[in-house]
Amino acid sequence: MADPMAKISYDLIIIGAGPSGLVAGLYAGRYRLNTLILERIAVGGQIILSHSIENFPGFPGGIATSELIERFKKQVDDLNIPIKREEVLGISPRDGIYNIKTKDGNYETKSVIIASGTQPRPLGVGGEDRLIGRGVSYCGTCDGPLFKNKEIVVVGGGDRAIEEAIFLSGYASKVSLIHRRQGFRASKILEESAKNNPRINFILESVIEEIVGQNKVEGVKIRSLANNSLRELGCQGVFIFVGITPNTAFVKGQLQMDEAGFIITDEDLNTSLKGIFACGDCRKKSLYQVINGCGEGAQAAHSVHKYLQ
Amino acid sequence: MADPMAKISYDLIIIGAGPSGLVAGLYAGRYRLNTLILERIAVGGQIILSHSIENFPGFPGGIATSELIERFKKQVDDLNIPIKREEVLGISPRDGIYNIKTKDGNYETKSVIIASGTQPRPLGVGGEDRLIGRGVSYCGTCDGPLFKNKEIVVVGGGDRAIEEAIFLSGYASKVSLIHRRQGFRASKILEESAKNNPRINFILESVIEEIVGQNKVEGVKIRSLANNSLRELGCQGVFIFVGITPNTAFVKGQLQMDEAGFIITDEDLNTSLKGIFACGDCRKKSLYQVINGCGEGAQAAHSVHKYLQ
Repeated sequence: MADPMAKISYDLIIIGAGPSGLVAGLYAGRYRLNTLILERIAVGGQIILSHSIENFPGFPGGIATSELIERFKKQVDDLNIPIKREEVLGISPRDGIYNIKTKDGNYETKSVIIASGTQPRPLGVGGEDRLIGRGVSYCGTCDGPLFKNKEIVVVGGGDRAIEEAIFLSGYASKVSLIHRRQGFRASKILEESAKNNPRINFILESVIEEIVGQNKVEGVKIRSLANNSLRELGCQGVFIFVGITPNTAFVKGQLQMDEAGFIITDEDLNTSLKGIFACGDCRKKSLYQVINGCGEGAQAAHSVHKYLQ
Repeated sequence: MADPMAKISYDLIIIGAGPSGLVAGLYAGRYRLNTLILERIAVGGQIILSHSIENFPGFPGGIATSELIERFKKQVDDLNIPIKREEVLGISPRDGIYNIKTKDGNYETKSVIIASGTQPRPLGVGGEDRLIGRGVSYCGTCDGPLFKNKEIVVVGGGDRAIEEAIFLSGYASKVSLIHRRQGFRASKILEESAKNNPRINFILESVIEEIVGQNKVEGVKIRSLANNSLRELGCQGVFIFVGITPNTAFVKGQLQMDEAGFIITDEDLNTSLKGIFACGDCRKKSLYQVINGCGEGAQAAHSVHKYLQ
């Protein structure tokens, strides 16, 4: 916990300890920058919501996300970069220095890397909020084991939705994958794998209109976009993977962002404020993967190094 | 070897099997694109000229570059993406298809990723060309063991030069690191490590004017930029790490490049020709590291996937 009166001055504060923030820390440490990493919830970020990752280069056959993050963290620890669990509330510039206000105090720093990532986007239908933790979930790894031999639905059409459907089919007796379109954004290899899985059935061109149940999920109301028909499907779990929202509210109005709140940077990851950089999933970009988030972490630290010189 | 008459048509041909090209292959395979990788010399590219890498995320304590590349290659092999050893001579567009001419034949493809990397830049002084392989080297890993208990010089001021000086101090009895400036571009952690190494001494603000020796290196003529004096230093080896030149001659005049021949792309890695993408060290960018080359490989494959849809 920061002493509210202390003004420890850093070369660099990294906000977020997901893959991109950790790699920024690794590079900053090698540049010998006096660096602090602040993390709101848990080291690893969104990736630890997935059980494993198959497409990170260097790990044939895949690796558990918890192990990958442990390896990243070891590299940061070896450079003696501290990681503190504190939520950042705001950044204020003063005389070329930035003051970082957290829930526990204040820090001063010459530069900032925002690697604050994203959180799951809600579906926005009736029953969703009320039934979170009572059958509504945004994380297969966390909650899958609770649905052994139960029937569940998975919502979404990207890589994450299909990966989670496959993972959840290891617990649930039946997984219905509901997607608003015929085609998937997911990579073909995942789509094929789901289609060959006898426990997964596809409900395409369809959307959930309501999640029903009193104290726990009992079913979903599904609207077909093909013929506009409405039907109810009984289930005990609803897993929602319909996109991500950036964790950038603490700099809203200060930095240039797109409408959804993703931070706009140039190729060297400068934001619209000098000395503040952004990398990883909180950035506006076209591919949201661990490997390019890591590449951006290295680039952001490099840009800070040049900026401080 | 390609049949000169055959016109096998691919979704994607990746030129170069260094880290960036291999990761592009890994992602292309997961998108189920019919992909071929062409490599001129050896899988791994420039990175295998270094003995090990410390800053690739996921490998605390570092990993031998040969092992890292083997791991990348295994992931590509697992997806049944072929890697052929053929040198690309040119690319010609025809009706939305690209014809790739190699030394051994022709291939047709709907899209191309250029990941052809770089090669070492020569110092450009007298004696250099004549004494290559006779004491002049661009690769510590390759040639270091030949200089056991000998005196050598290392030229350059970036990460690579310092890494190699440290590595070579394990063989040579004395390493003189010659750099034209007082300060280093290398990361501080490397600079400190070299400065604490009793076998490495620094000759700063100095340049080599000539490499001397009849049939093998016998010394170097060093000009001080501080006081313009010239002196000769006896040595048996000269290791040169003064930058890189992109391997892009086969597309010169076709794609937009900077003066040095680095390919100019947008953030999604489109080159100036539709359907041709570039990633890794052959691109104009500000940081040349394995991790961001890998991130770009993923991005390039993603951009191809979108382009083909």
